[in-house]
Amino acid sequence: MSVLQIGAGGVGWVIAHKCAQNNDVFGDITIASRTIAKCDKIITSVHNRDNLKDKSRSLVSRQINVDNKEALIALIEEVNPDLVINAGPPWVNVAIMAACVATKTAYLDTSVATDLCSEGQQVPEAYDPQWAFREDFEKAGITGILGAGFDPGVVSVFATYAYKHLFDEIDSIDVMDVNAGDHGQRFATNFDPETNMLEILGDSFYYENKEWHQVPCHSRVMEFDFPVVGPQKVYSMAHDEVRSLAEFIPAKRIEFWMGFSDSYLNYFNVMRDIGLLSQVPVTTTDGITVEPLKVLKAILPDPTSLAAGYTGKTCIGTWVRGTKGGKPRSVFVYNICDHEEAYKEVEHQAISYTTGVPAITAALLYFQGKWSDVGLFNVEQLNPDDFLDLMPRIGLKWEVQELEC
Amino acid sequence: MSVLQIGAGGVGWVIAHKCAQNNDVFGDITIASRTIAKCDKIITSVHNRDNLKDKSRSLVSRQINVDNKEALIALIEEVNPDLVINAGPPWVNVAIMAACVATKTAYLDTSVATDLCSEGQQVPEAYDPQWAFREDFEKAGITGILGAGFDPGVVSVFATYAYKHLFDEIDSIDVMDVNAGDHGQRFATNFDPETNMLEILGDSFYYENKEWHQVPCHSRVMEFDFPVVGPQKVYSMAHDEVRSLAEFIPAKRIEFWMGFSDSYLNYFNVMRDIGLLSQVPVTTTDGITVEPLKVLKAILPDPTSLAAGYTGKTCIGTWVRGTKGGKPRSVFVYNICDHEEAYKEVEHQAISYTTGVPAITAALLYFQGKWSDVGLFNVEQLNPDDFLDLMPRIGLKWEVQELEC
Repeated sequence: MSVLQIGAGGVGWVIAHKCAQNNDVFGDITIASRTIAKCDKIITSVHNRDNLKDKSRSLVSRQINVDNKEALIALIEEVNPDLVINAGPPWVNVAIMAACVATKTAYLDTSVATDLCSEGQQVPEAYDPQWAFREDFEKAGITGILGAGFDPGVVSVFATYAYKHLFDEIDSIDVMDVNAGDHGQRFATNFDPETNMLEILGDSFYYENKEWHQVPCHSRVMEFDFPVVGPQKVYSMAHDEVRSLAEFIPAKRIEFWMGFSDSYLNYFNVMRDIGLLSQVPVTTTDGITVEPLKVLKAILPDPTSLAAGYTGKTCIGTWVRGTKGGKPRSVFVYNICDHEEAYKEVEHQAISYTTGVPAITAALLYFQGKWSDVGLFNVEQLNPDDFLDLMPRIGLKWEVQELEC
Repeated sequence: MSVLQIGAGGVGWVIAHKCAQNNDVFGDITIASRTIAKCDKIITSVHNRDNLKDKSRSLVSRQINVDNKEALIALIEEVNPDLVINAGPPWVNVAIMAACVATKTAYLDTSVATDLCSEGQQVPEAYDPQWAFREDFEKAGITGILGAGFDPGVVSVFATYAYKHLFDEIDSIDVMDVNAGDHGQRFATNFDPETNMLEILGDSFYYENKEWHQVPCHSRVMEFDFPVVGPQKVYSMAHDEVRSLAEFIPAKRIEFWMGFSDSYLNYFNVMRDIGLLSQVPVTTTDGITVEPLKVLKAILPDPTSLAAGYTGKTCIGTWVRGTKGGKPRSVFVYNICDHEEAYKEVEHQAISYTTGVPAITAALLYFQGKWSDVGLFNVEQLNPDDFLDLMPRIGLKWEVQELEC
């Protein structure tokens, strides 16, 4: 048995640790990235934390630029993995999926291929480039699992679980994501600043009465009393799973909400107002042409560097309202994750931890023959009970909170 | 008669218009800049506003890079001006002064050669690179006038006037600068963003009891009730004239204060916190190396572009407290300048207008043989009455307001 992990950022970091902790199942592990040094740093961390369960199996690194189609296919053929785990940024998904089809190799990822911000790449079209592969996956006789992180990912499993066990009819699904942690920096992003800023810049889309509603970012806000971390202001935002939930689970309204502190929003608004979030190149008086957003990425702290001092907790969950047995019901299904505990275990923070653990939970279900049918699937199409049984053992507990209606 | 103006930014724009309005005295005018198109744009503006008084005299442009010592000397020799008016950024002063000494040509500028921010370039050393030329100017038999803008410049003339006529002893001199105008942009700087940001970034220095006191920028704040524009919050800041006032006028405390809106400071603080005001180059993931501060300059609106829609007024003055005839006295000597009126007259806003008019007032006094002794002078060393008699006719009125002690 073997797996090939592509991507060595924060999520890749956690996925590698969790793969290693379960390498009695996964077998040999290869981590590939454009920058091989990032893979090697992760491998050192895995050994340092003594997370390689079966020390007789290999854990190695490879350099790969996924834009080089031939090189990517050659790498997959060389490694010959049972599963490719894509932990790269959104824009590599399609290239990796094509290579998996070409080599008849199972595929798993944790977010969509679009930027959720530009024209044609927004929430209603979020899965189009990947759903276009459905027939290819069936013909190739392989399994593809899309969006198996936390959000997208676990929050959809929570919704599927709620639809299966807790509700007869669903009025609304609100995905709620708050990071109540503190990294000690005045301003920093928790993952790639470019991806993060584009995600926030984009209009929000929510699905209501079978139609998409487009609203400017940060224009819809509410306060929600989260378990453990308490009341937080959350803002309607563009997010992948609103698209897949709308496809697979009947609900009158589906929306994603993320918590932002007033300070974070102030930094964001200033950076947007002065044009620093633009991808349109500018030329300096020195004659250097550069994209402002890439300069922002270069001056902000490397998200990976924040993990060591991170304190506090994340709370991410799915708030479902509807009826059961003719009575109104309101339920919040959620996870609490602690930054410091995540760091102790895998040398990274909770935001990467909560994305990496579900990916490995899904990967294990694939290896166990439970999430392994031929075809391309979003997690809403797969059995939530198998997943929610396994996930706590991989590192994330979950709770169901009944709310007043 | 003829003058050579070097620099074609906002201040250069106003200086050119004012030169042209007085070309019966100045004679032929040459405007030189690294970018000759900027000179030509100014010349078109002068003709559009019909500001060339004597149409028989020439108004022409030249390209010059002042870092090219030979080219600069050749330009001065070609134009053979009675006076070089330096309207360039701080870092060109020394090169132009050296060329004036070499060609025995009179010199005038409106700000110091240092950035007031970096180690060794702060307020206590602000005039060192230029005062080093004192002997050279005497030996060459030429006049040099330093810092003849508004601040530095007129505010020191106000202080000299107060010391000469209104006070026996001075306790404190507070230079007060507020722009209560509105350019309609969320954030923009009124002059070169690079110069502006460095000026604000630096520690403030005030002079008290014959010693320099260094404090972080924006750490000393007060509210002052300005004439016409009303109460404004002002912050202690590093500024050229604190150095020259300390040299030439006896006072227990000398300090410079600038008004900043809460919104401006918020933008500034965010930009500083994220590292966008740094001059240390960073490298993007594309491999492009660039100074963040230069990128900020490239993305912010060109200050020149703000003039057209600018409304409101500036108020800049000198608040002197001390004693006269044994009684305490508190006086604010000031000017009010209106952005829209400045634009009507010279197609630029009040901040450039208030710097350009004093430079031309001083230049006229030089041509009139009043501010024309051999040697290198700060305006505190020259007769304030000549200057304050002439300045209103060139475009800036001034008032004396008695304040309660």
